[in-house]
Amino acid sequence: MRPFTETLPFADALRIVLDAATPIVRTESVSLADADGRVAAKDLVAAVDVPPFDRAAMDGYAVVAQETTAASVDAPVPLVCVDRVFTGQVPVRHVGRGECIEVATGAPMPAGADAVVIVEDTVRDGDRIAVMRPVTARQNIGPRAADIAVGQVVISAGQLLGPSRIGALAATGVTTAHVYARPSIAILSTGNEIVAPGQPLAPGQIYDINRFTIESVARRNGGVVASLSTAGDTLEDLRAAIDAGTRHDVLVFSGGSSVGERDLIIDAVRERGDVIFHGIAVKPGKPTLFARIGNTTVFGMPGYPTSCLSNAYILLLPFLRRMARLPAWEPKTMLLPLARRISSVAGRHQFYTVRVVNGAAEPAFKASGDITSMAHADGYIEVPADVEVVEGGTEVRVTLF
Amino acid sequence: MRPFTETLPFADALRIVLDAATPIVRTESVSLADADGRVAAKDLVAAVDVPPFDRAAMDGYAVVAQETTAASVDAPVPLVCVDRVFTGQVPVRHVGRGECIEVATGAPMPAGADAVVIVEDTVRDGDRIAVMRPVTARQNIGPRAADIAVGQVVISAGQLLGPSRIGALAATGVTTAHVYARPSIAILSTGNEIVAPGQPLAPGQIYDINRFTIESVARRNGGVVASLSTAGDTLEDLRAAIDAGTRHDVLVFSGGSSVGERDLIIDAVRERGDVIFHGIAVKPGKPTLFARIGNTTVFGMPGYPTSCLSNAYILLLPFLRRMARLPAWEPKTMLLPLARRISSVAGRHQFYTVRVVNGAAEPAFKASGDITSMAHADGYIEVPADVEVVEGGTEVRVTLF
Repeated sequence: MRPFTETLPFADALRIVLDAATPIVRTESVSLADADGRVAAKDLVAAVDVPPFDRAAMDGYAVVAQETTAASVDAPVPLVCVDRVFTGQVPVRHVGRGECIEVATGAPMPAGADAVVIVEDTVRDGDRIAVMRPVTARQNIGPRAADIAVGQVVISAGQLLGPSRIGALAATGVTTAHVYARPSIAILSTGNEIVAPGQPLAPGQIYDINRFTIESVARRNGGVVASLSTAGDTLEDLRAAIDAGTRHDVLVFSGGSSVGERDLIIDAVRERGDVIFHGIAVKPGKPTLFARIGNTTVFGMPGYPTSCLSNAYILLLPFLRRMARLPAWEPKTMLLPLARRISSVAGRHQFYTVRVVNGAAEPAFKASGDITSMAHADGYIEVPADVEVVEGGTEVRVTLF
Repeated sequence: MRPFTETLPFADALRIVLDAATPIVRTESVSLADADGRVAAKDLVAAVDVPPFDRAAMDGYAVVAQETTAASVDAPVPLVCVDRVFTGQVPVRHVGRGECIEVATGAPMPAGADAVVIVEDTVRDGDRIAVMRPVTARQNIGPRAADIAVGQVVISAGQLLGPSRIGALAATGVTTAHVYARPSIAILSTGNEIVAPGQPLAPGQIYDINRFTIESVARRNGGVVASLSTAGDTLEDLRAAIDAGTRHDVLVFSGGSSVGERDLIIDAVRERGDVIFHGIAVKPGKPTLFARIGNTTVFGMPGYPTSCLSNAYILLLPFLRRMARLPAWEPKTMLLPLARRISSVAGRHQFYTVRVVNGAAEPAFKASGDITSMAHADGYIEVPADVEVVEGGTEVRVTLF
């Protein structure tokens, strides 16, 4: 057995991990329907004007503004309505002296007219329209290119796409968005004791948890996940799994990174690449490995599910978001009194899970091996490495999951 | 033309919409990999103990605790290591007097032993193990069922599934989660002027935007989207589209809800169901229809893309989240000085889009027809119906998209 001789302070580990997160450069095209949450890979320059023509901005009558100057309720200006234009139609008539054309919101403006009198400011009698309020030139018109002009940058490279930006892409007539590819994450659960849910358990075996928790964290933070089959604890199995994993941007394995003699995976990683650190001064999550094999970043998470998931939140999540070019996660936090005294190991930065109960932070941490330490918690508080006791009643900042 | 005779205050419209949002009762099973963000439809009661056996919580030696009582660095207790057990293995030997068995973290505890001495507290010489620190009974053991016991409720109906809860489901060996179905949303863009992106534009035509913005909002708020083909402005087309749409929980159409004579869709909706309101005192977004046809809730959004998307955020989003049983959206907000004076129409609650520029809220609203009013904005401020001017420098609350 090889005990940890040295562990890295959490802040150092996080800095190393973030420095290693190279924003992805591969790009791909996705349909607009699939573009939500993706990051634009290049500027989109409009090839069309939006709208492509002057249009009525209100329902009413297209007029020559100058003819309405004297209009009032007491002395309406009479015009003759000579045609009407709905949206999607092309105006055929010209608006001449003493004339107007009925227009619907969004309809192209007829030639000759330079403003729209809204329907509420008119009285109609057959073809005769009484205009009761003046309009000025361009009033109630949406000019060609007012929204987007040919040559204008609609979306800039690096922008996160959401409803409105996808709408702006659609407005220019494109059907796809050119976006950065998502980091590809291979997930590997190691250990002879690990069995996929749905299979029967033999004595000594437990169900795989980490594959599912890591996959959820990876997917919601911009990753695309490839699950590798569970690897046994033979060097041959692990080598084959690592070789499969290093076809991806990130390989996350769990288990096999503690100090037992059968922790062959570290040897298998060392054979192929460089271990950057192994062991962090956090609780849970101390036996964590960070390595590089070729172009693949490797996270070796502890096998214990709460240790694994805690580290996925505090290290893998910020790494992935930076790699995926997503904005940093801004968790919701709240200040609450701690419901009862907790003690924390000296020398390790502790992420202590809590439930929010009756306006207080109730300690929820059971053991690193218990997934219910997280599943039955609402968030966590942080206890710095140099603090060993936090008294009940102390105001603590809860970071919600 | 039929002008709006009355518009509903925004707060009333929102209350009516929320009251109409019946939480969905259909359920379905999804694989754990697809369960993130879904809502549990029933309690999951554990059918197995997790872990299913007492296991070593640390790497070390399984011992009889009582035999270590006198152990110290100066006077270590000598034991003979008679076997070793790795994770996934079944112990074959029994720990007898003066004996110990090497155990890896997670390995089943051998019979006879009742504690684990961690490897750091021992010195090994061949089979001879010197124990330098006493342990108490149960120390460094993870007892059977400590995480989850048979019969325990692991996940409660109504809980939102995320990484840790999906992990807890996996821990009990299940492969699927029983969840509430997602509300099914049919999206329909109406209007003869609307053309799908990718097609050539004829004179008088514009590209469909609303289908894409509504789809993004619906998908990220728990909906599953069916896009109907664009309907023209004939009553026959609209009837067919409505009939297709009412096979879904929600029908959202855009366009055709203003006051033009060709706004046939309202007539088509009235033929089949009940209009609950038509017209809200908001800007943008006044000409909004809310209706019910059979079991389908119908949103008739304005055709103008910023009006449509603004209403999707303020009405459709809270409706969908309640229907999908998701927690209410808590937008990020920030207090900033308004960069310059804006004016607002009297009598309408205005959602005025802004950009955050140099620590100030820069007005970004152009016109309701301009999608860049939203796409080139970071969020919006609200201007109540009775406020007509907000001066530059006023501190305003920006709700970020």
